[in-house]
Amino acid sequence: MKAYLAGPDVFLPNARDNALAKIAICAAYGITGRPPLNEALGDVTAMPEDIAWRLIFRSDIEMMEECDIIIANLTPFRGASADAGTLIEVGWFLGRRKNVFGYSNSATLFAARSQAHIAAVPDPLPGLMVEGFGLPDNLMIPGAVEAGGGLPIILPADGEDRAFAALDVFEACVAAAARKLGLA
Amino acid sequence: MKAYLAGPDVFLPNARDNALAKIAICAAYGITGRPPLNEALGDVTAMPEDIAWRLIFRSDIEMMEECDIIIANLTPFRGASADAGTLIEVGWFLGRRKNVFGYSNSATLFAARSQAHIAAVPDPLPGLMVEGFGLPDNLMIPGAVEAGGGLPIILPADGEDRAFAALDVFEACVAAAARKLGLA
Repeated sequence: MKAYLAGPDVFLPNARDNALAKIAICAAYGITGRPPLNEALGDVTAMPEDIAWRLIFRSDIEMMEECDIIIANLTPFRGASADAGTLIEVGWFLGRRKNVFGYSNSATLFAARSQAHIAAVPDPLPGLMVEGFGLPDNLMIPGAVEAGGGLPIILPADGEDRAFAALDVFEACVAAAARKLGLA
Repeated sequence: MKAYLAGPDVFLPNARDNALAKIAICAAYGITGRPPLNEALGDVTAMPEDIAWRLIFRSDIEMMEECDIIIANLTPFRGASADAGTLIEVGWFLGRRKNVFGYSNSATLFAARSQAHIAAVPDPLPGLMVEGFGLPDNLMIPGAVEAGGGLPIILPADGEDRAFAALDVFEACVAAAARKLGLA
């Protein structure tokens, strides 16, 4: 069972160590974690930008094709919602009819995060709706996770926000996914 | 040719009028525009939240299944990137091997928007990478649009940011999609 480990984790200064820690957690639950670090591509920063980004995109899609499930880090990233690239990948797995699992290190609901965002960066026009529903993000995200894997987005069980790169909620998500898939 | 009209347009105070204007533009190019307004569901605000959001999710997915292509409004929404729900939908269409087209009313590149976001709302830890590549958003988004429809994300041709709900860049996107699909 190969899992694509999606998330803004690739932007961490210690992205490789973080990926190795996630792989080790997955292994303990019978899952082969695949992080999209694209190390086989070499130094993409030395390439022309229009070549580099397409190589990374194709490499990510190839890894997604090889994986059976996605385990997505849906922690908010530079905005009220989860990381943009991660959301494309979650949608892709649902579209491909592969299992989708996800977690967030934020215990704060989407409506409250949206209001906080608007307070810091005003909306471009008045009257734009703030989505609620008591959900952790835009309804398409818990919808994709529930439709794709049969579970909610896994959140901090104690209701406390975690540090951005904390891995205990990730481990709870891997454990729940493994149970759902009959691996544990 | 049915097009799913994805975007944060559903959050506009005049969402219905906006949707009708988009449908009229699509019709001029031989495309049947389908906006996910979910009017057939009735007043979802009168329903329990956990019923309402699942009805909306299922209704959106059903409309996506019925559509041949997606034309996505990728204008940034409450953060450095495009609207979260729209991104799930773009990924889904790519995963389903259906055509993907998209536009943005922002002419500002992703790296500059990310830096502006960090200035207003500091990152949760130091050293998080800012993605560049001269792209309008996280590389997975122009990647999905290019892989799914053969075109770049359509941007304001004069390099000037548009108002959030402006429709001239949408029309340029519809025209480009129609040409690509041999409709015009």
